[in-house]
This record gives sequence, C-alpha cells and structure tokens, in this order.
Amino acid sequence: MSATEFGIIRRYFTRQRSRREEVLIGIGDDAAVLRVPVGHDLVVCMDTLVAGVHFPAATPPAAIGHKALAVNLSDLAAMGAEPLAATLALTLPENDPEWLEEFSRGLLTLADHYDLQLIGGDTTRGPLTVTLQAHGLVPPGQALRRQGARSGDRIYVTGTLGDAGLALCLQEAAAPWLRQRLEYPEPRIEAGMRLRKNASAAIDISDGLLADLGHLLEADCLGATLSLESLPRSDAFLSALQGLDAGKQDLHHELPLTSGDDYELCFTVPPDRCSAVARELAGLPCGCTVVGEVTRQPGIRCLRKDGSAYQPATSGYRHFG
Amino acid sequence: MSATEFGIIRRYFTRQRSRREEVLIGIGDDAAVLRVPVGHDLVVCMDTLVAGVHFPAATPPAAIGHKALAVNLSDLAAMGAEPLAATLALTLPENDPEWLEEFSRGLLTLADHYDLQLIGGDTTRGPLTVTLQAHGLVPPGQALRRQGARSGDRIYVTGTLGDAGLALCLQEAAAPWLRQRLEYPEPRIEAGMRLRKNASAAIDISDGLLADLGHLLEADCLGATLSLESLPRSDAFLSALQGLDAGKQDLHHELPLTSGDDYELCFTVPPDRCSAVARELAGLPCGCTVVGEVTRQPGIRCLRKDGSAYQPATSGYRHFG
Repeated sequence: MSATEFGIIRRYFTRQRSRREEVLIGIGDDAAVLRVPVGHDLVVCMDTLVAGVHFPAATPPAAIGHKALAVNLSDLAAMGAEPLAATLALTLPENDPEWLEEFSRGLLTLADHYDLQLIGGDTTRGPLTVTLQAHGLVPPGQALRRQGARSGDRIYVTGTLGDAGLALCLQEAAAPWLRQRLEYPEPRIEAGMRLRKNASAAIDISDGLLADLGHLLEADCLGATLSLESLPRSDAFLSALQGLDAGKQDLHHELPLTSGDDYELCFTVPPDRCSAVARELAGLPCGCTVVGEVTRQPGIRCLRKDGSAYQPATSGYRHFG
Repeated sequence: MSATEFGIIRRYFTRQRSRREEVLIGIGDDAAVLRVPVGHDLVVCMDTLVAGVHFPAATPPAAIGHKALAVNLSDLAAMGAEPLAATLALTLPENDPEWLEEFSRGLLTLADHYDLQLIGGDTTRGPLTVTLQAHGLVPPGQALRRQGARSGDRIYVTGTLGDAGLALCLQEAAAPWLRQRLEYPEPRIEAGMRLRKNASAAIDISDGLLADLGHLLEADCLGATLSLESLPRSDAFLSALQGLDAGKQDLHHELPLTSGDDYELCFTVPPDRCSAVARELAGLPCGCTVVGEVTRQPGIRCLRKDGSAYQPATSGYRHFG
C-alpha cells in the first residue's frame, strides 16, 4: 500500500457507522483480524463486477458500490448467513474523488444497513473492476446448501422475477422502480436467515431462475415442473409490458424464467414444512411464492395454465460463450 | 455462475491435494463455509494483480498464479498467521485452456505447499485481473501488527533486498535466480509465525523498504536510522551489478531501499528479545539481518559506512501518481 493508496482508503472507506465487536483489527494493517464467535460457522463468498460486462460504464457510481456488496450479500442470504464483514478490491483507471465519494457512499450505506463492517482490501490502477468478498455467520451446521432438495419438495422464490431484466431491455425507458431493481438489488438476508431450519436447499437467482434452479437440481440429479402462471411478476413489470407491442409479449414468460440480476432467492421446502415457511416469512416485505415442484425426472418443464409445455428461447446468462 | 463458469472452476481449480478439516463447504456452492477452530483468530487479507500494472502481460501464467497467492501469503506472514484458505476472483479476456492450466498449476502448487485450500471465488470476463483473498490463523491476540515498535528497537529484514527490483531493471538480461525472485516470490510464512512472541511490529516489503518501514514507523510516530552497509544483498544481485557500467552503481543502495516486489518481512525487535529472535529464526533458509534502529525522531535516515547521510532518489512505488 502506497501513501496515496492509504489516503484513498482512509478518506473514503473508513467513515462507517458499523463497528462489529468480532473485528479485532480493521482497515489499515497488512491484514484484518476477526474473532469468529464460538458456536458459529463462517460463510465466505466473493463476486466480481466488471465495467461493460456486469454493468454499463455509465451506471451511477453509488449503484456500482451498492451492487458490488448486494450481489455478495445475496450469496450470504442463499446460505442463510448473517452478514459480518467484507473486503474490497477496487481497480480504478484513475483517482477520481467524485466517483470514489459516490461509490463508497453506495457501498457503505448498504453495509451499515446490514451492520457489516468493511475490514480491508486493496486499491489498484487498471480497468474498472470491483471484487467484493463477504463474510457471514451461521449457527453450526445450519448453512443452507444447493444440495438437499428431494422429489416432491415445493419450489419457492422470494419477491418478483424479471424486473431487472426488463429494466435492462428498456434502458432509458424503464420506469424508476424497475431501474431501482436493476441498480439497487435488495439482498434477501432476512428471508435466508428465517429459512435455515425449513428449506431443504437454496440458491440466489443471479443468472435467471432456470439457470440457477438448474444448478440446485443438478446437485441432486433431480428435475422440476414450474407453473408459468404462478411466477411472481411485479405491477411495474406487468404495466411496462402492456405498453410494448405484441411481438414482445413473450417477455412476459421469458424474463421471469431467464433474465438475471433479480437477486431473489430460490429454495425448496418439504411439503410438511410449507406452513412453517409461510409463517416464518409472513412478515417480510418481499414475500415468497410457490412456483413449482421438484421431480425425480431430470430437466425443468415449464407448464402453461392449460398444461401445455412452454419452451424458453434462452436459458440464462453465460459468462464465457 | 453459468454452466461454463462451473466448468472452468471444476476443471482447473478443484484438483488440489490440500483438504483442510476447517473447510466444511468448499468450491461449488453459493459460498464456502469455514469452522474456525476454537482458540484462534482469523486473519483476512486481499490483494489484486492487474496485467500491465503489477506484471508484464507476457509473464508466464504459472508465475501469475504463484504471485497472486504469494503476495497474499506475504501479508499473512507479516501478521504471523498460518495459511488456511483462499478465494480467487479471476477476470479473463477469454477462456484460454492453456493459460488456465498453467495459471492454476502455479497457484495450486503454492497453495498445497502451505496446506492452504482454495474454497471458492468467481470467474468473469474482462481485462486480465487477479484478486486473491486469503485466510490465516493466529493464536488469540498474537497477530503481529504494524504498530507496536518503540524507540531503540532493532529493525530486521528477512532474506535479501533489491533482487526483484534488479530483475525488473534488467528484464531479459536478468540472471535466472533474479527472475525467480521477481516471478516466484517466497512468502516468509515460517518466519512470521516464529516472530509472534518476540517482534514488536511487522510489515511485508511490497513497495520497498523505505516505503513499508515508513508505514510501520508512522503507526507510532517514530523514525529510524538505517545502515546502508548492512542491507542484505544476494550474491546474484552483487555480481549482476558488477557487470553494469559505473553510472548505474547507485542501484547498489537504491534498489534495496526503494524497489518493491521482494516480499521479505521487515520487523522490529526490542533489544532484550534479539537473541530469542536469532534463535527462533536460525534454522530458516531466508535468515534475517539487523539493518537499523527505531528512533524517537521521525523520518528515516540512511547512513553510509562513514556516517554520512545518503538521500535516495525515490521512495517507493505509488499506485496513484
């Protein structure tokens, strides 16, 4: 760390409200030191956002800061973990105080909201890339996994699907609420924590429901049927689609199934636990919806209201084509 | 994670010998899960290498993989920590099997050497950037810090200084041993662990002795005198300098003081602990050398053999000019 790098870190990334007692040494040394409380496992995840790949270069810096943390918190949520601390690797083309001011505000506002402390990282010069690494806590052995689903389990999602994908399609024409869903995703931390005892498996939806549910099912060589009608769509999503011409109406199914960036949770629940899940998640604003059922037969079958099969045109984002 | 991303991770990054019992869930889920053993603090660091900034684009991929982990292990060493686990964020312009094969070999060979397990991460598409985040263990309260030095403490460095800097100067003309020092730095893990009880402060030398010792001293508003003559220089360094013309002889002092990338440790020891340190570090191949003393007067004074002051031309690498 050079003196200038120190300056950047001190100036922008240490003005945080959250101070966790588990953090013995935070920003400013060769490394940070955590004391994980007895009776907890530590959940560790890491995600990178690359300018021009994961967000348009013109994205507001506060949204980039928010999203870099949110996508990691979404991984913690999918494990049922409570956020604890994060490290940030920020690669920047130049030292731009205005950009840093906004970026750090977006990041630290979300961090403070979840009482997560930024404990260190690295700032380097190069093409704009943000890697964030988050730590969370779960009671021993209670981390939710991708594997664990069984045939007959109900498939749930939190919130609504396709909003971020539609915002990306509509660009400037997207309603503010849809843009908000794309730029400021809300990690479903509280939902994940409440699912620890009743969900059989969980994953977050970053690449689209079909792709991510696919990963969950593959972990146990299972399949699923999904009810297209039951996929939760927001009012903003439905009214934006009404304004589009008839040729684009397949987006109604396509986006909730295949568009990424919603950062909702997808999870499975044994039938005898469904009422417990409904109870546990009742008070949460995001809510949850049953969208299908796990089957022994591999593959995901999407069914229309009349029982006919729907074949989506795409099946989720691929990082390397 | 798309199917292809899964493929990359499975194919290249899971073929590791080390399996730590502290790792409950490794690569393949939304996040990894660690159980930190009771009676240990967790040390957490993160460093990024950007192509064209931290290494020339033509660097052998195995060296990039090695170095990405080594610079983080060097931070762990400076804290006195024992390596445990790491996460990798790899941003690649394209899916290049040959490059990935070599890169992962370089990284995992070093990981296995220190019984560190790669537990997760993210692969994305974009300009070549490698962020690695490492976890280590220390007994409670025994992490070495940058702060803690006192006036009168002896200043030590491990190994030799200036080798990597000279390799960078000489480029193709550098002797293989010097290139090795630049491309395959050896983190001083064992030295760091043996210093826990006797060093008053420690830092690793990534940006040059003057810059990094400066950070250590600033933490307590102290200064230092350094004896130029005592700076440890390797045989390869000395003989390479003999081959250069007279105009370049100031590199003899300049490189050990100001060039980065050596990844040796710089640490301070109270006078009554020096014999204990000599004993503890005796068996290590890198050895250690007293190069100066901490002073109450701030600033670092470099003294020639005759007692005259030497003023270095530069004072270490700056990430943002």
